[in-house]
Amino acid sequence: MTKTIFTNILGCFVIDDNKGIIEQKLFADYAAYSQREDVEKAFRAKHPKALPFPEENFPTILALFADQRYFSLFHERNIELTKAALKAAVSDDDFIFQTISTLKDLDKICNMLAKRLREWYDLYAPEVVRGIESHAQFVAAVLERQKSADSFGADLAETDVAEMQELARKIQGLSALQEQQEAYLESVMKKHCPNLLAVAGAKIGAQLLDHAKGLKRLALLPASTIQLLGAEKALFRHMTTGSRSPKYGLLYQHPLVQKARPSERGKVARMLADKLSLCARLDFFKGGLHGKEYLQELEKKLAANTLQKQKKKRVPKP
Amino acid sequence: MTKTIFTNILGCFVIDDNKGIIEQKLFADYAAYSQREDVEKAFRAKHPKALPFPEENFPTILALFADQRYFSLFHERNIELTKAALKAAVSDDDFIFQTISTLKDLDKICNMLAKRLREWYDLYAPEVVRGIESHAQFVAAVLERQKSADSFGADLAETDVAEMQELARKIQGLSALQEQQEAYLESVMKKHCPNLLAVAGAKIGAQLLDHAKGLKRLALLPASTIQLLGAEKALFRHMTTGSRSPKYGLLYQHPLVQKARPSERGKVARMLADKLSLCARLDFFKGGLHGKEYLQELEKKLAANTLQKQKKKRVPKP
Repeated sequence: MTKTIFTNILGCFVIDDNKGIIEQKLFADYAAYSQREDVEKAFRAKHPKALPFPEENFPTILALFADQRYFSLFHERNIELTKAALKAAVSDDDFIFQTISTLKDLDKICNMLAKRLREWYDLYAPEVVRGIESHAQFVAAVLERQKSADSFGADLAETDVAEMQELARKIQGLSALQEQQEAYLESVMKKHCPNLLAVAGAKIGAQLLDHAKGLKRLALLPASTIQLLGAEKALFRHMTTGSRSPKYGLLYQHPLVQKARPSERGKVARMLADKLSLCARLDFFKGGLHGKEYLQELEKKLAANTLQKQKKKRVPKP
Repeated sequence: MTKTIFTNILGCFVIDDNKGIIEQKLFADYAAYSQREDVEKAFRAKHPKALPFPEENFPTILALFADQRYFSLFHERNIELTKAALKAAVSDDDFIFQTISTLKDLDKICNMLAKRLREWYDLYAPEVVRGIESHAQFVAAVLERQKSADSFGADLAETDVAEMQELARKIQGLSALQEQQEAYLESVMKKHCPNLLAVAGAKIGAQLLDHAKGLKRLALLPASTIQLLGAEKALFRHMTTGSRSPKYGLLYQHPLVQKARPSERGKVARMLADKLSLCARLDFFKGGLHGKEYLQELEKKLAANTLQKQKKKRVPKP
């Protein structure tokens, strides 16, 4: 007679050849279920010859539990299980996705409101609207109620200008929220993916995660794919129409790529993607902290490269 | 010998047949220019036979002022004139346009951020996100950190929830700004177009002004056009493809149209547009305050209409 051990969300069972239950231990609640391996171990010790229940026979076991009395228990335990799985499914990845989306929205909103304020303040002091390019500085100027003495703008009542200033105040508040959320993003990434953070910075790192749909997938992507994340449209255009292949996607915004000469940017993006791929793997598989090292390595290499090129240029032709 | 009187931005001149200046008074500055009619009157008293300079001869007068010494004066006075015209061109219409645009933007933004907050809070308490339909109430719930005991959401750290609450606080701030701007809009309209405000309400009235591009044009529009402001797309579709003609545009949002039965809404919109047209004219040509009267008249008429219909229905067939 062969005995088999079978475990489901209700309990752990020792079953004989005739699908009869010899011994069983029902789990009292979800907490007990999560300790199921201990129960299995105890049963295996008690029935040393028992095998795990063969997978191909799983359908036959259903008959054992087709009893009405199990139904509500199955239902209840399943809900608990789902709840626990849902709770566990929320990870730092999610916070990063949410924060980077919020930051994108806030950026759009601040621009939109600043443009609106410019149109409005144009009635009062057009020279201020046209003279200050940066939205942030312009908003500050509105709050100081800047206006030149020989302005072409209308002389407005206090209450009319106050409304514009109220809008300016709200724009400043939203910018402050933006900064705060950036700091939060950085703090989450410091825990979740410190290496990626060190090499890519908070914003680009978060966007890479967002595009790759999580740290796990980012860690499993080849470096060449990371290099082109965010350039999907150009890549598919390249594949379908044969236009030139893109050299970088999101990485284009990285300071190292920005600093490089245009002809070198593709190369720098490739080197950067290489390191970022290593970083994502270190972060996902809980390796050490090497992000800063990598970044310095890259910087050194690029500086040496530039120096060499400059030297080469200076050598007079024979 | 006939004498003529000619005035430009430099001064007032009495000119004889040979285009010689007999007498002149140059304006000292822009303020003097704006009193030019008094100077003309004095000259006319002094030279009772002088006529206004004939319009068809204006080109010939240019020779008189082709002197170098006038050039900088012309330039300076012209700039002053333009500046004054620009300053005078800013009217209450402009404030209304700006405020209604800001309100539209704020509405869009509040929705956008509330949706983002919902997606974010969904990680923490999905039952709150799904259970509360109104954005405002949902935002308040986030600030109270509502979460049911048997929530499927993850148990998050204080700092993670705090970020969501910060966003919620900003959304509340923007809603408050919205309310404040609505109050401001109403105060501007109370001065500028009290009758329109009384019948249409602040938001619809401002949108009508925005569509008509100002109170003057709104006052000159026929009531049938006012009825269809905001339904331009449907109107042109009707004209080109022969689809059914629209019955209302912006007026669809008006409480009287909303309260009416669907089959009556076109009629109510027509009656409302009639009154609004009267209101815009009263406001633009500075008539009295009859807005409230008109509204009551409308309400009475509509109520009587509904009563009659109900009575008719109740009469049993012979």
